[in-house]
Amino acid sequence: MDKEETVTLSDGAGGEKMQSFICRLVLSNLDSSAGEIPLGYLDDGAVIDDIVFTTDSYTVKPLIFPGGNIGSLSVCGTVNDLSVMGAEPIALSCSLIISDGFSLKDLDVILKSMREASDRAGVPVVTGDTKVVEKTALEGMFINTSGIGRRSDLLDSNIEAICARREFAQRWPNDSAVAPGDKIIISGTLGDHGIALLSFREGYGFETQVKTDAQPLNHMIREALRVGGISAMKDPTRGGLSNLLNEWSQKSKVGIILEEDDVPLKEPVVSACEMLGIDPLEIGNEGKAAFAVVPDLAEDVLAALRKTDEGRDAAIIGEASRDYRGVVMRTSVGGLRIVESPVGDPVPRIC
Amino acid sequence: MDKEETVTLSDGAGGEKMQSFICRLVLSNLDSSAGEIPLGYLDDGAVIDDIVFTTDSYTVKPLIFPGGNIGSLSVCGTVNDLSVMGAEPIALSCSLIISDGFSLKDLDVILKSMREASDRAGVPVVTGDTKVVEKTALEGMFINTSGIGRRSDLLDSNIEAICARREFAQRWPNDSAVAPGDKIIISGTLGDHGIALLSFREGYGFETQVKTDAQPLNHMIREALRVGGISAMKDPTRGGLSNLLNEWSQKSKVGIILEEDDVPLKEPVVSACEMLGIDPLEIGNEGKAAFAVVPDLAEDVLAALRKTDEGRDAAIIGEASRDYRGVVMRTSVGGLRIVESPVGDPVPRIC
Repeated sequence: MDKEETVTLSDGAGGEKMQSFICRLVLSNLDSSAGEIPLGYLDDGAVIDDIVFTTDSYTVKPLIFPGGNIGSLSVCGTVNDLSVMGAEPIALSCSLIISDGFSLKDLDVILKSMREASDRAGVPVVTGDTKVVEKTALEGMFINTSGIGRRSDLLDSNIEAICARREFAQRWPNDSAVAPGDKIIISGTLGDHGIALLSFREGYGFETQVKTDAQPLNHMIREALRVGGISAMKDPTRGGLSNLLNEWSQKSKVGIILEEDDVPLKEPVVSACEMLGIDPLEIGNEGKAAFAVVPDLAEDVLAALRKTDEGRDAAIIGEASRDYRGVVMRTSVGGLRIVESPVGDPVPRIC
Repeated sequence: MDKEETVTLSDGAGGEKMQSFICRLVLSNLDSSAGEIPLGYLDDGAVIDDIVFTTDSYTVKPLIFPGGNIGSLSVCGTVNDLSVMGAEPIALSCSLIISDGFSLKDLDVILKSMREASDRAGVPVVTGDTKVVEKTALEGMFINTSGIGRRSDLLDSNIEAICARREFAQRWPNDSAVAPGDKIIISGTLGDHGIALLSFREGYGFETQVKTDAQPLNHMIREALRVGGISAMKDPTRGGLSNLLNEWSQKSKVGIILEEDDVPLKEPVVSACEMLGIDPLEIGNEGKAAFAVVPDLAEDVLAALRKTDEGRDAAIIGEASRDYRGVVMRTSVGGLRIVESPVGDPVPRIC
């Protein structure tokens, strides 16, 4: 390894560059293939001894933003990582790293938001750790939340619903289980979180009414699983929906065709993305989930999602298909464009 | 709350000031009393649904120091937190927050040390997360490791050994279970980790051969539990043995008398502490555990510890007693001195 080589921002940005960085440095050193869903799967969490286990450090900037803050974000993100694995979240840990001189008032606001999000999800914070470091070592604060969950009691009936329609279903919904014909559902509008953050950062010079979408999705996902037939679930965080669908396409070895007109987007998000030259499909979200569902249950899952607060804007936006390679989108004007996995994230430090 | 108030370094230093900070801000907002050992117990981890769950963020400075680095430390610390709870560790998570421009060579060294410590403990890293932030936001890197474990199969026989000798034993060894007569055992020399770090920091102007004691203790603790009769176990990290024994004394409502001559200390640590005016009992350790053991099994537990690599310098250093209030030490010259919980940590950022 070259002595001069260093880590760069794009190594943590959630796109292709990050994948290669993680494989080259982290997996080569740490992966031991332990567990039913081990580190090497690069899934949202691990499964070991039937416990689902996940971790996330939040370095979002700014710490407080329209509609939320690092506290609510850190609870929602980890609850959602457990939920999209097919787990019922049991408990969270909360580890604070705070800069000397940090405002106690802001800290109180942040911790109160953590509690509110934790109460809304019904998932308690049960263990924690607090470190304070010098101003020169850290700007503001970081929060790590890890989470544990148990395999949802609804996964068995979910599998049965899949097996009634095709030969084989996997024990957990996962990135490699998407099959041709599966409908792709997104639970709501895309890009809100990234645009809310950008609008609040210095130097961007635009204003918007868009708020973060950060919200716990465990209750909504339970309603979807109750219908059944879900072969894969995932939350489009860093790298956005583009990254998510490319992961499904690659790991499941299936093409995916999207309908641009069906992708739910808020008008101010469309305007901001046009102004900034950003693709809304590449922006990270913190309160949305994508589902791949067996065709004849897709409308039922959609209806169940729409009945929830978190999923009221849900839409079927495409399907898995043998007729395409990779991820392709039929645009509003009728053409086809390839949807690539972003190299890095267009909006850094969104989580 | 006063608008001008801010977090200070001593709020995270492991002493009395940190206890009051945690109670005032963190517990008041986050504690929900969920679990068998909930957040409010401020123990080394939580127990919920018979899963032991713990978290720690490592902000040690410097990142690489004599005998170890932030990588090995982050594995040992979390394995030990699970082990002193009475758990068999199952798995760890690893969340990296890295500064843009960080040396890939150093990162590789750190991750290799994580793997070595994980292999030595026999506890795999199963899930992870990587964030990269700007140089202005973070100096170097932080690592969070969280861990899950299961109640050790040896705890039932450990309880039986206690119950054979007194009326009542608690389901888990814990801070409030120390009884009068219990012998206090420390598994090895104190202060090594803090002095190794200090010697390596700029501006301290002394050299020493002392290395960190960071090591996973799960195998050693298993040998001690096999003997049984252990009412409490804890690792003397931030705040050192002084903090640990004061917690036992307060939570168990019992006095503790220490024999200064029996406390194992390396000669270079004694010299460095004298030169710097630091009490070795207040320095954090990363590879030691203290045990409170029913009197007539203490020698057997000591012998079992001494047979292990990690516990070869173990010693009985005192006992719990109704004859004293708080923690008291009989000094080498025959006097008694009160051992108080440190207000802050004499060596900051040791973990």
